Amino acid sequence: MVCDRLHPDNKKAMTDPDLLQDLKNIWHPCTPLKDPAITPLLLVDRASGIYLFDNKGNRYMDVISSWWVNLLGHNHPRLNRALSRQMEKMAHVMFAGITHEPAIRLAERLIQGTPDNLTRVFFSDNGSTAVEIALKMSLQYWKLSGHAKKNRFAYLKDGYHGETLGALSVCGSQLFRDKFDDVLMSNVEVQGPDCLRCPFGLKRESCQAECFDAMQNTLDTHSESLAGVIVEPLVQGAAGMKMYPPVYLKKLEDACKAKNVHVIYDEIAVGFYRTGSMFVCQGHELHPTFLCLSKGITSGYLPLAVTLTENSVYEAFQGSFENFNWFVHSHSYSANPLACAVANETLALLEEPGFSESLQQKSGVMREVACQLEELPWCGEYRQIGMIGALELVRDREKLTPFPVEKRIGFEIFKEGLTRGLFLRPLGNIVYFMPPYAIEEDEIKTMIRSAGDSIRAVLEKE
Amino acid sequence: MVCDRLHPDNKKAMTDPDLLQDLKNIWHPCTPLKDPAITPLLLVDRASGIYLFDNKGNRYMDVISSWWVNLLGHNHPRLNRALSRQMEKMAHVMFAGITHEPAIRLAERLIQGTPDNLTRVFFSDNGSTAVEIALKMSLQYWKLSGHAKKNRFAYLKDGYHGETLGALSVCGSQLFRDKFDDVLMSNVEVQGPDCLRCPFGLKRESCQAECFDAMQNTLDTHSESLAGVIVEPLVQGAAGMKMYPPVYLKKLEDACKAKNVHVIYDEIAVGFYRTGSMFVCQGHELHPTFLCLSKGITSGYLPLAVTLTENSVYEAFQGSFENFNWFVHSHSYSANPLACAVANETLALLEEPGFSESLQQKSGVMREVACQLEELPWCGEYRQIGMIGALELVRDREKLTPFPVEKRIGFEIFKEGLTRGLFLRPLGNIVYFMPPYAIEEDEIKTMIRSAGDSIRAVLEKE
Repeated sequence: MVCDRLHPDNKKAMTDPDLLQDLKNIWHPCTPLKDPAITPLLLVDRASGIYLFDNKGNRYMDVISSWWVNLLGHNHPRLNRALSRQMEKMAHVMFAGITHEPAIRLAERLIQGTPDNLTRVFFSDNGSTAVEIALKMSLQYWKLSGHAKKNRFAYLKDGYHGETLGALSVCGSQLFRDKFDDVLMSNVEVQGPDCLRCPFGLKRESCQAECFDAMQNTLDTHSESLAGVIVEPLVQGAAGMKMYPPVYLKKLEDACKAKNVHVIYDEIAVGFYRTGSMFVCQGHELHPTFLCLSKGITSGYLPLAVTLTENSVYEAFQGSFENFNWFVHSHSYSANPLACAVANETLALLEEPGFSESLQQKSGVMREVACQLEELPWCGEYRQIGMIGALELVRDREKLTPFPVEKRIGFEIFKEGLTRGLFLRPLGNIVYFMPPYAIEEDEIKTMIRSAGDSIRAVLEKE
Repeated sequence: MVCDRLHPDNKKAMTDPDLLQDLKNIWHPCTPLKDPAITPLLLVDRASGIYLFDNKGNRYMDVISSWWVNLLGHNHPRLNRALSRQMEKMAHVMFAGITHEPAIRLAERLIQGTPDNLTRVFFSDNGSTAVEIALKMSLQYWKLSGHAKKNRFAYLKDGYHGETLGALSVCGSQLFRDKFDDVLMSNVEVQGPDCLRCPFGLKRESCQAECFDAMQNTLDTHSESLAGVIVEPLVQGAAGMKMYPPVYLKKLEDACKAKNVHVIYDEIAVGFYRTGSMFVCQGHELHPTFLCLSKGITSGYLPLAVTLTENSVYEAFQGSFENFNWFVHSHSYSANPLACAVANETLALLEEPGFSESLQQKSGVMREVACQLEELPWCGEYRQIGMIGALELVRDREKLTPFPVEKRIGFEIFKEGLTRGLFLRPLGNIVYFMPPYAIEEDEIKTMIRSAGDSIRAVLEKE
């Protein structure tokens, strides 16, 4: 096995029996299979606050909140206590024929925190299933309402909504779908906002979402076959933290209402204050028909997901038992009490007085400090909403020419980051920051500065 | 709201503020929407061993292990300790670029406990995703191997493999799929074993799986387009605990090998000693290409799932980063350390000396005691494998005429069971027993006797 030149611990790490056993047995998600043999995985032993600690005691800042899930920091005393308390009563019980207090509390909190039209909560385990449930509810709703032809969805180019085959069928990224295109349901891809390279030459701060025309055309042409439109509101995460203005979402809401099409918000990555408000829909007075949440809901402790919808949808399922008009869908661990208990404590922490103000302050610091990234000669754009910051690196700043994929500059920067105590995970040429909210101002400064150093170390050699 | 005549606590329960809040906010899985308004849900407050306790202190035996997930009993001291210990180190960390000891231990244990050909473990969160991953790996494998036409799966009539749209496309039950048939991938349904009503007039104890002809025909006709065949080995759970002999699986293995088609085992419900051996494949020396596990893997504590496969599959994904031949699939909470820690302790408990013998003993007691169910005038068949027992109720014992669906006799028996301290959840006309292994012999006797009483209370009125 080849040891990589950049990671100082490589040769030593590759003799670690745990890492060798991992290499022999485990197939890691979204990982080119040869990578762990060349660049050893980080063997993380414990975590605290914004830091991960490997088995040699080295510390790494969890810059991307462990795939965007951790909100309040690792090993949080109050979350640990909530988990322990629930464990002492009951880890899990099934959720058909049975209910329990942690789920009842959580559903009430979520309904209180989301727009008024969202009145029903359906529980599941992960983001993909939350999306699958929204799609299936929408399909069945139209069937029950005498519009069986409405059996397709529109989705945005570069959009990401999970990778089970239903969720994948509304993903607009070839990276995820190209091996499976022939078995996916026939949905409609729509060119969405592309603010950095706006074809109208406008700025996201001042435009009127002129790019919405493409979606309007789709709705005009296909509304008879369209069940719904699914979007990641404000930030297309896996696309590289592509950010677009709320006016697009307002237009989408109005157009879908006019055309009798559901609006599905996937706030799995952006919910729970990531963009500055508890939810995008609630912060911007928007009213999706379905809202999918997961990731941060347990502050990165446990898998849990919910799909919220409105009474107009729910009531359509009130048929009798015999005609099976009800929604036949379940997951064994729906509304897992341990996960619900941690979610309740997460929401309690987010709702504490002063929390959102302190986050706004941190977001401001991050924006300010990130100015130094804009000085880099490879900065195509630094963009930020709330606690999500993203630097798009380009080879030519004027022409915004991307670095070629085969250079893997993101992966090289990731490895440089490790040597500087950062766990980054760039999305292609986009280095992004999505730290736990527990990050302090001086840590924000360290994060941005070290990321800049890592980028320079890689790109100055190009 | 109408209060139901059978449940004594109804009127009182419907004034419970928690239950009313549940009724207002929550959409329960696989539940006709009007049911919770008519028959109050059980508000479970805590659980211990094989018992659930409601908020009034009433005790219910968890006869079906909370949807088949709980193996070792609720609130198990050793599982609680394992969870606490892991929590003190780290609840979760991402699983790309990173690994951790609980996952490494678990993968090694699973590979040790399964047939030799299974050498790689891919982690996810729930049963549906474990199946989706097997389907996607199979599809991509054939594409990478120059057999792009192999893009369909064969599945058994009445088979159940989860309800995300990919998993649903290999389910053979109209109850689950009929609202979504028009968007599912085009797979092939095959008539499988139907031992109670065997068209060949044979017995499952002595036949040679003559019914395999249907599958053989499918393989003969469609092998060029078939990527794989998926089955629930030995027991089709959601179909009503339909049981069939291992000789069917042996024939399937041989035929698929001859036709170059993958075999996918969904042992989500039957794994971890449910049928008497750790896994069906290992106990019967069978070698599926993919093995999906979930449910009992954490003894009913937390959502976790794995898909195991063999090196012949894994090696096909070893392309370079640039051509994206790797498997692009992930879930945020893949290999959640808390869940992995509980899974490791679960497996340690299952592997303790004497465990499998004690289970065999309990299974024997259950089989013996269940004789009294065979005396019931509505007994079409009592069947049992390991710790899964099922009584199929029929209106006419000679002709095996089923009770009509609209009678909902299963639901009536469920309600009678509650009054006798049993949490049953019949599958249509099939009353089944799948208790946690912690059940004691006298509790087995109580369970069977009370179930018999509940059945009589309902059917004597018919």
